[in-house]
Amino acid sequence: MLVVPLIERKRDGGALTPEEWSALVAAYTADRVPDYQMSALLMAVLLRGLERQELAALTDAMLASGQRLTFDSWATPRVDKHSTGGVGDKVSLVLAPLVAACGVAVPMMSGRGLGHTGGTLDKLEAIPGFRTGLSLAEARAQVMKLGCAMIGQTPEIAPADRRLYALRDVTGTVAAIPLIAASIMSKKLAEGLNALVLDVKRGSGAFLPTLEQSLELAQTMIALGEDRGCPTVALLSAMDRPLGRACGNALETEEAILALRGEGPADLMEVTYALGVEMLLAAGVEKTSKKARQRLENALGSRRAAAPRSSRMPRCSRKRRRWRYTTRPAPAWSSAWSRRSSAGPSSRWGAGVSPSTMRWIPRSGSSSR
Amino acid sequence: MLVVPLIERKRDGGALTPEEWSALVAAYTADRVPDYQMSALLMAVLLRGLERQELAALTDAMLASGQRLTFDSWATPRVDKHSTGGVGDKVSLVLAPLVAACGVAVPMMSGRGLGHTGGTLDKLEAIPGFRTGLSLAEARAQVMKLGCAMIGQTPEIAPADRRLYALRDVTGTVAAIPLIAASIMSKKLAEGLNALVLDVKRGSGAFLPTLEQSLELAQTMIALGEDRGCPTVALLSAMDRPLGRACGNALETEEAILALRGEGPADLMEVTYALGVEMLLAAGVEKTSKKARQRLENALGSRRAAAPRSSRMPRCSRKRRRWRYTTRPAPAWSSAWSRRSSAGPSSRWGAGVSPSTMRWIPRSGSSSR
Repeated sequence: MLVVPLIERKRDGGALTPEEWSALVAAYTADRVPDYQMSALLMAVLLRGLERQELAALTDAMLASGQRLTFDSWATPRVDKHSTGGVGDKVSLVLAPLVAACGVAVPMMSGRGLGHTGGTLDKLEAIPGFRTGLSLAEARAQVMKLGCAMIGQTPEIAPADRRLYALRDVTGTVAAIPLIAASIMSKKLAEGLNALVLDVKRGSGAFLPTLEQSLELAQTMIALGEDRGCPTVALLSAMDRPLGRACGNALETEEAILALRGEGPADLMEVTYALGVEMLLAAGVEKTSKKARQRLENALGSRRAAAPRSSRMPRCSRKRRRWRYTTRPAPAWSSAWSRRSSAGPSSRWGAGVSPSTMRWIPRSGSSSR
Repeated sequence: MLVVPLIERKRDGGALTPEEWSALVAAYTADRVPDYQMSALLMAVLLRGLERQELAALTDAMLASGQRLTFDSWATPRVDKHSTGGVGDKVSLVLAPLVAACGVAVPMMSGRGLGHTGGTLDKLEAIPGFRTGLSLAEARAQVMKLGCAMIGQTPEIAPADRRLYALRDVTGTVAAIPLIAASIMSKKLAEGLNALVLDVKRGSGAFLPTLEQSLELAQTMIALGEDRGCPTVALLSAMDRPLGRACGNALETEEAILALRGEGPADLMEVTYALGVEMLLAAGVEKTSKKARQRLENALGSRRAAAPRSSRMPRCSRKRRRWRYTTRPAPAWSSAWSRRSSAGPSSRWGAGVSPSTMRWIPRSGSSSR
């Protein structure tokens, strides 16, 4: 295909048609468009932006490049959460089993650490033998058995995103709001969800530090989700300090396990509950925020999230049969966290999320819930 | 080298240091920076621009990537002309021998056709056996023997420009004024010149159609040349219609030969004389425009340009000994031109350059000559 006229049009501030985006993404994924042309186009997109229908077409093309999780007539509602990433953000490790314990399935596809931010997959792999590379069939079976699965992006899901992401990473084209939104949503929309809750980070530790950028990203993703029949809610949360007290893969995984036992730091639990409430409301299993919060607290108090289901997740995901999660004393490598933990939160670490830095983005079309 | 931070800085409107440009161009030429990173940077340069010292550093780095023509203590002044290209522009074929016949050497490095515009090399190669691929040593010897040489960009001259140009051509990053200026000047400054005259085309048949763009390109190249000790003059000329009557490589070469015999169309001669006057003035062989014009007209009238020197150029550049330029009747393939020629200029072709579309850019620092 002739790519130069498309690059030139975008460079000059014009728009590509949905058909052009579709053909371009397909050709790039099939190695018929070279990286050097795609990177020039990505830079033009970063500096010129994408119109709404272009963004939709790009997302659809990336989504269409792979397969989707399907749950056929399975009645359990499915809701996922996505965070734009930060330091100490181990919310997923607490939230997925907690929400699953409340009767909402969470088929979660997570990422690796990126730049200065940690990655949920890296944290999970601090558990010896934990296998994040499940196939779509395995992930589906685990979600239907346990209520949640936490897996990496498989080669089957949005392969175009995989390639584009790797290229953006080495060409200075990561920080483009439409490209971030398309990348996230092309994966999330492949999960067979009934609804999606977004945790958009803002502050000095976030990829997009300013409120304006965070709001734009949140609104862009909400529009993409809603337009594709997936009700989407976004929460903006503070990332001007690390979340919780532990940083580092093993330390954060241990902190998440303690949180599921009711021993989580206040700021981590505040963000976890806020997102969990939205997930239960979006799934329709509760009607009010107050009842949803109560249900989450009950699940945590009863240890339903920590015990019967989530402790089976490592077993389902294990690589070798000889490992199994047991309640052991903290191993030597977590001593740094243990020391900080016993000394209480410092002024810099784990100071909690103040309500004034949390803002709700209502669902599009409604101003209140 | 770490290229992503450089791309990001340019993307965000910042500047690279001269040392960074130098290292980047050297690394790219040595295949240590991949095309996909360079094309993203080129798109950022196109959309964000280059500061004056960045442009100077980029040009110097491209120039430094190769060798230069040197003429040591040879006393003959050397002046070249460069045109930004258009349709029917065969001026170089007339101008180089004409100026050489007036005692100014013209070591001319020309290009191929690009987009809709013709290339001087392609036109010359319409002469069977004409060889444009001279080495630098051959070009130098020919300039010192005949007064002019017309050659292609050798692998020895500005190889960085060669690679960057090929990449720009396929990534929609050709039409960036600083990149155009750096590309042209890195080659011209390698020719060992005493001065340079630029023919910047404007109008619907030019690469940069508007007056503002043409002026910006002209001023950018003048600044680059003057800063490097090469007095540079620019002429803006009309390219809203083809120049002369003939279009096509063989036809244009024939028209140029006829022009050297005093039978050139008025518009072609007007542009040729205007540029030639500037070249003689820049070389210092004449002091006034009037005298310079007279000298050019005398040279043409005496057939000195057509006969003794330029007719030897094909012989010097010949591939095989069996070909030699002779005054033969127009061959069959030039009949299209002959027909148009005998019918006189049509309203569309060869209508001449009106003085109102020609503007002089004075040399920097002086407002009149």
